[in-house]
Amino acid sequence: MFLFHSIFQGECSQKCYDIFVLETVCVAWFSLEFILRFIQAERTCLFLRTPLNIIDMMAILPYYITLIVDAMSEEKKPGVAGNNYLEKVGLVLRVLRALRILYVMRLARHSLGLQTLGLTVRRCTREFGLLLLFLCVAMALFSPLVYLAESELGAKQEFTSIPGSYWWAVISMTTVGYGDMVPRSIPGQVVALSSILSGILLMAFPVTSIFHTFSRSYTELKEQQQRASRQLHRLEEREQSMVLDS
Amino acid sequence: MFLFHSIFQGECSQKCYDIFVLETVCVAWFSLEFILRFIQAERTCLFLRTPLNIIDMMAILPYYITLIVDAMSEEKKPGVAGNNYLEKVGLVLRVLRALRILYVMRLARHSLGLQTLGLTVRRCTREFGLLLLFLCVAMALFSPLVYLAESELGAKQEFTSIPGSYWWAVISMTTVGYGDMVPRSIPGQVVALSSILSGILLMAFPVTSIFHTFSRSYTELKEQQQRASRQLHRLEEREQSMVLDS
Amino acid sequence: MFLFHSIFQGECSQKCYDIFVLETVCVAWFSLEFILRFIQAERTCLFLRTPLNIIDMMAILPYYITLIVDAMSEEKKPGVAGNNYLEKVGLVLRVLRALRILYVMRLARHSLGLQTLGLTVRRCTREFGLLLLFLCVAMALFSPLVYLAESELGAKQEFTSIPGSYWWAVISMTTVGYGDMVPRSIPGQVVALSSILSGILLMAFPVTSIFHTFSRSYTELKEQQQRASRQLHRLEEREQSMVLDS
Amino acid sequence: MFLFHSIFQGECSQKCYDIFVLETVCVAWFSLEFILRFIQAERTCLFLRTPLNIIDMMAILPYYITLIVDAMSEEKKPGVAGNNYLEKVGLVLRVLRALRILYVMRLARHSLGLQTLGLTVRRCTREFGLLLLFLCVAMALFSPLVYLAESELGAKQEFTSIPGSYWWAVISMTTVGYGDMVPRSIPGQVVALSSILSGILLMAFPVTSIFHTFSRSYTELKEQQQRASRQLHRLEEREQSMVLDS
Repeated sequence: MFLFHSIFQGECSQKCYDIFVLETVCVAWFSLEFILRFIQAERTCLFLRTPLNIIDMMAILPYYITLIVDAMSEEKKPGVAGNNYLEKVGLVLRVLRALRILYVMRLARHSLGLQTLGLTVRRCTREFGLLLLFLCVAMALFSPLVYLAESELGAKQEFTSIPGSYWWAVISMTTVGYGDMVPRSIPGQVVALSSILSGILLMAFPVTSIFHTFSRSYTELKEQQQRASRQLHRLEEREQSMVLDS
Repeated sequence: MFLFHSIFQGECSQKCYDIFVLETVCVAWFSLEFILRFIQAERTCLFLRTPLNIIDMMAILPYYITLIVDAMSEEKKPGVAGNNYLEKVGLVLRVLRALRILYVMRLARHSLGLQTLGLTVRRCTREFGLLLLFLCVAMALFSPLVYLAESELGAKQEFTSIPGSYWWAVISMTTVGYGDMVPRSIPGQVVALSSILSGILLMAFPVTSIFHTFSRSYTELKEQQQRASRQLHRLEEREQSMVLDS
Repeated sequence: MFLFHSIFQGECSQKCYDIFVLETVCVAWFSLEFILRFIQAERTCLFLRTPLNIIDMMAILPYYITLIVDAMSEEKKPGVAGNNYLEKVGLVLRVLRALRILYVMRLARHSLGLQTLGLTVRRCTREFGLLLLFLCVAMALFSPLVYLAESELGAKQEFTSIPGSYWWAVISMTTVGYGDMVPRSIPGQVVALSSILSGILLMAFPVTSIFHTFSRSYTELKEQQQRASRQLHRLEEREQSMVLDS
Repeated sequence: MFLFHSIFQGECSQKCYDIFVLETVCVAWFSLEFILRFIQAERTCLFLRTPLNIIDMMAILPYYITLIVDAMSEEKKPGVAGNNYLEKVGLVLRVLRALRILYVMRLARHSLGLQTLGLTVRRCTREFGLLLLFLCVAMALFSPLVYLAESELGAKQEFTSIPGSYWWAVISMTTVGYGDMVPRSIPGQVVALSSILSGILLMAFPVTSIFHTFSRSYTELKEQQQRASRQLHRLEEREQSMVLDS
């Protein structure tokens, strides 16, 4: 895990170097595996469109891009100009490095649970859209109301703008309640009460139907896996019996 | 989205003017559409009572009212008297401007999910009432208890009044927990524990039955829509075959 | 609602006096109703044991007790001794006054929802006990662990005692999260994670079975009510037809 | 309950001594019971592997270990060296003392609810694993993203490291929301929104299936208990009738 979070900060100590070597080995292994699978694939286009392969590419590529950019920036070092440009490149690089976390998603190839999750997400796009639509409409309705109530009547000015109120509405409707923005006036609190209640109800709607899809997908994939393993078993038995017969 | 939140603050810059033009175009289009539908409607009274049309009117009207009030206030500008009166008008105007957010609800005409939501709300008024009744009774029971416990025994005086305790009770029972009011004394914490537990249970009661109504309404509306589109399809086919026959 | 919260604070203004008159009228009405029902009841013992009647008594009695104590304390006023004793009596009086909120529970006589709630509570004592037992066991397990982790390793000493940690455990397990006590050390945060997860699971167990009891009780009571109203209707019709026959 | 929390702090007062005597009596009783059951057990190995017996041992042993270590440390008192070593031993002792809380788990022998809980945990290891896997993957995905967004753009530096962001992700995804770490920048808030939504959905998946296992186990254990008590009843009746016959 430490591997993914090592953000090189200027000087590169011994420990940092060890991590770099370890990462190089990992990426080399992943790249080799990916290239072999790519060569074996019948249809190149279909292979590159599979979600799991896209995740693989997004996890491997940042390493190579970082290497290239590092090499290029070292060449350019003497030139002091373009400092602002370098900073932007640095930010992009750090984002790409954070993408290395997608290595974790490779586990999905081997875990039934994560595969079910992926299948559920693909099947429930309609419900997810519904959930987001409800959330957006409720946010758009309650944010201006609470902003108006608080900016007119509230003593402490925590609600400085309507986009800020969007954040408050999300945090309240999901019942997280960080407490960084709290309505102090009575109209604001009434708005808060209605937004919290509507949030609880709105979240409850699609969550349950998403859950049903999940449990159905889970049993389907389980059966599929068992059937596959049984077929494999039968094939092995047949081969063994053929070996014994001959 | 930016359109709805532009609250004119004194000077009107170029950007502000562009937004005004954009809004005028939108409102003109909406008004035209509304008037055409109004003329075509068989029963005027029934048309004006439909919830979606009321929402349309509430979204369009603020623009015209604002225009009129702006014109009137510009006439009155030389007179310094009635400053307090102008402030109140300004507050009403800002509330009306916030109502422009109801444009968003016009999406309901085209989204199956939002229509289902509306149908659920109309069918579950009984359950919503029950939810509010439970919440009010629990609030009325726990607020004086926690106020008494805290004002007698608590060191920090966060619970300054019983209406303030109402706010605390709502935030605790919905498990939001902003943390702006926290009981410090042991009796207050016991009251908090029982109010949180009863809140979780009370919220769970009607939420589930509301959800069942929602999923039933959703499948109903879906079937209705499919039947309508199939009928439309059949009509089109028949027309085409009649055209071919002739 | 204002009526129940008026806590007399020394001087008694005009407004305070009006509230006193209003309360006297209410209590007089409730007492009359209660006495009439008490006289009509066949079995006195059974009548006094019914939960709704106990609530009625607990809501009416505080008024009379307050009256008596006020009269007595006015007599004793010249004697300065027993100041500490008077303070304790005052506290008891304020608790009794808070009990007046039980007037709200009288609504249960007329609301189907509140009656269902009462029936559910009586039927689910086993599940409520289970919920409390689970909560207590989890609290007893996680509080010493988090206290140990935080008092040994945490920088800020928020966890000053194990009973204080009980409060933290309750607030975390119910996912309220006020944020007044937050573990800062890594072992404390691991304990927090496991306590939150176990809390979510433990709460989910009995909540669902309590909900099923609630919805079953609701349909039962609804049918019972409808049958009763139908019988009443039939009786009225028969009486009318008998009147018409004669 | 007070018994379990008495952490001896230097001087040992009269109260402390009484608690020590009480604990000695309790532990002696528990040890006697445990030894008798151990002697009666047919298979020693199977007996020591039963979860309830392991809990018993873990609850009883700390007392004896504490006694031995106390005796040893008193012998070594004159030697000043090894102070650091003594501190570590003290920490271990305090952890062991906190384990005495496992006495509470002995209740499981007599409570149907706690037995059901144990059975559910043993049956749902797969679902618990799934829940933890989902949580870990989501944590690993969102923590670097929120750290990047906040450390680049946030004004207040609350997100000092990626492990610290893990804590934030857990607290947000379980909707606890202590509020000790709150994203301030807009990209951070978008990450927060998506992590909260995915947390709610991820938690909902296995919770429901765990609940179904729980309610099934509960009815099973209830039937088993009733059958056992009926058999016991029948045996008693038969014995009585045999006594009467003879």
